[in-house]
Amino acid sequence: MAKKTVAVGIDIGGTNTVFGFVDRDGKILGEDKIKTTQYDEIEVFVAALYEKILVTSYKIGNGIELVGFGIGAPMGNINKGTIEHAAGLPWKGIVPLADTFKRHTDLPVIVTNDANAAAVGEMIYGGAKEMKNFVVITLGTGLGSGFVIDGKLVYGHDGFAGEIGHTAIRPGPSNRECGCGRKGCLETYVSATGLKRSLLKIMADSMQPSELRQYSFDELDAELIHDAAVRGDYIAKRAFTHTGNMLGFKLADVVAHTNPEAIFLFGGLALAKDLIFEPAKEFMEANLLSIYKGKVKLLASELSTQNAAVLGASSLVWSVKES
Amino acid sequence: MAKKTVAVGIDIGGTNTVFGFVDRDGKILGEDKIKTTQYDEIEVFVAALYEKILVTSYKIGNGIELVGFGIGAPMGNINKGTIEHAAGLPWKGIVPLADTFKRHTDLPVIVTNDANAAAVGEMIYGGAKEMKNFVVITLGTGLGSGFVIDGKLVYGHDGFAGEIGHTAIRPGPSNRECGCGRKGCLETYVSATGLKRSLLKIMADSMQPSELRQYSFDELDAELIHDAAVRGDYIAKRAFTHTGNMLGFKLADVVAHTNPEAIFLFGGLALAKDLIFEPAKEFMEANLLSIYKGKVKLLASELSTQNAAVLGASSLVWSVKES
Repeated sequence: MAKKTVAVGIDIGGTNTVFGFVDRDGKILGEDKIKTTQYDEIEVFVAALYEKILVTSYKIGNGIELVGFGIGAPMGNINKGTIEHAAGLPWKGIVPLADTFKRHTDLPVIVTNDANAAAVGEMIYGGAKEMKNFVVITLGTGLGSGFVIDGKLVYGHDGFAGEIGHTAIRPGPSNRECGCGRKGCLETYVSATGLKRSLLKIMADSMQPSELRQYSFDELDAELIHDAAVRGDYIAKRAFTHTGNMLGFKLADVVAHTNPEAIFLFGGLALAKDLIFEPAKEFMEANLLSIYKGKVKLLASELSTQNAAVLGASSLVWSVKES
Repeated sequence: MAKKTVAVGIDIGGTNTVFGFVDRDGKILGEDKIKTTQYDEIEVFVAALYEKILVTSYKIGNGIELVGFGIGAPMGNINKGTIEHAAGLPWKGIVPLADTFKRHTDLPVIVTNDANAAAVGEMIYGGAKEMKNFVVITLGTGLGSGFVIDGKLVYGHDGFAGEIGHTAIRPGPSNRECGCGRKGCLETYVSATGLKRSLLKIMADSMQPSELRQYSFDELDAELIHDAAVRGDYIAKRAFTHTGNMLGFKLADVVAHTNPEAIFLFGGLALAKDLIFEPAKEFMEANLLSIYKGKVKLLASELSTQNAAVLGASSLVWSVKES
């Protein structure tokens, strides 16, 4: 019997690094993780990760043929295979991740950021299988984006295309400080953190009662706000509407740049469904130039949320192999 | 002797339609024009235009081999070869321009908007010959944009990519009405018209003397404002600074979308050189995410302004022929 070809998808996060062996249909045959925070040196981290991958490979057994490694990481640069100045990771400066990995293997090693991996994942396994021009927006602690044009992920000249989380919501001063050192970036409004910040502002202005008034800023998270909104909490609903509106407003800009067929929302906040999609759709349509109105689909990602990051990372391998 | 291959570039404007026979190096071998406004029916317009092209061809003589027609037009749709709801042209609705043209010729006929034509022109004849990822911004009465990614013009799913003139400068209400029916679009700030509108606002707020206070709104144009600014007129200089700043602010957004190597400014307003480039560069850099800072070139188009539109349109033919 012919061996089944599989790609390893690796998702490097601030706390854990998760990986999985994934077949061409997006089925995960085996997975495991290591603690990112335990490794101060990239060489030691990669060696430990590679060993764990080998162990998992033995467990899966003989029936597979490994074809490559796809790695999603914050500030992952697809042109150079590096991680560059990622604030949330233990390794500082420019980290030669692909080169370090290649000391252990001759197979292809592709590095990119989480949002680009999600975009390729949507094309390989998800709702964009038949699409050539689409955008994926990842809504987590921050906001990431990946652009596919003419069936290919857009890399950009320096390997850093698709950082729309760091476009400004308006010119001139804004009060919302961003982790990037500037103020008023889109992700300070549209992300799990942005939702919480908007909630506090609305709570400060409004006299309406809210079950969320009992929680501290540190205690609050997107899930608490979501659950309150579902129960009809006025302040929580307003926070979602504002977040969705700001997203929709900037999605109209995205459309005016590359005129995609669809925009997919991916990640925790996208699971709030209508709470985020309806206000986003409303403001996107209201701000679209007439030639685009009613033509751009706003869709939920079809990657299973639990393994989405690993799926996305693994999809890079198929994408390169098949292009 | 082998015949010289040439493309015909056609620029359809609200008043005139200009065309030229252009060789692969961007040299114009012959040119002429007809009045766009004289033809209420597209069939009659195309027949008259084609006849004039034949006449010019005879004048040039036997030494050329024609390889195709490239047409730049407002709201030109490259996917469908149509002009769609162009406000400034005599023909309403969706005009099947390429199909009408093809009744006269078997050669390729490519239609797109002026900004996309300018982008391809920059790649074929101008300053982007060695570039794979760049953006061209056209600054005329309005603001257009063309994106090239991985050496190819971005069409978009519906053929309308690159309308950043109609991205909003801020969320919420703005007082500047746009020709597209909305308010606060980028081109209401950054264009020859936008410059004039800003000038009036600054003139209203400021007590500074200005030679421009003697002109009516109808009399004012970008050239008058430019000449006053060069002579040191405070109000005129402020209007250029504001226009450049708004442009730079939005260029930072453009970079965060597709991470280009360079952005070219094209058209009348770009000829103001430092008056527009310096404030644009300043605000672009100030608003760029750190990974992009100092990396994106802001350049003047290298297409000769006089024939730029015809050159741009003709370049579409070479671009398709060589891809």
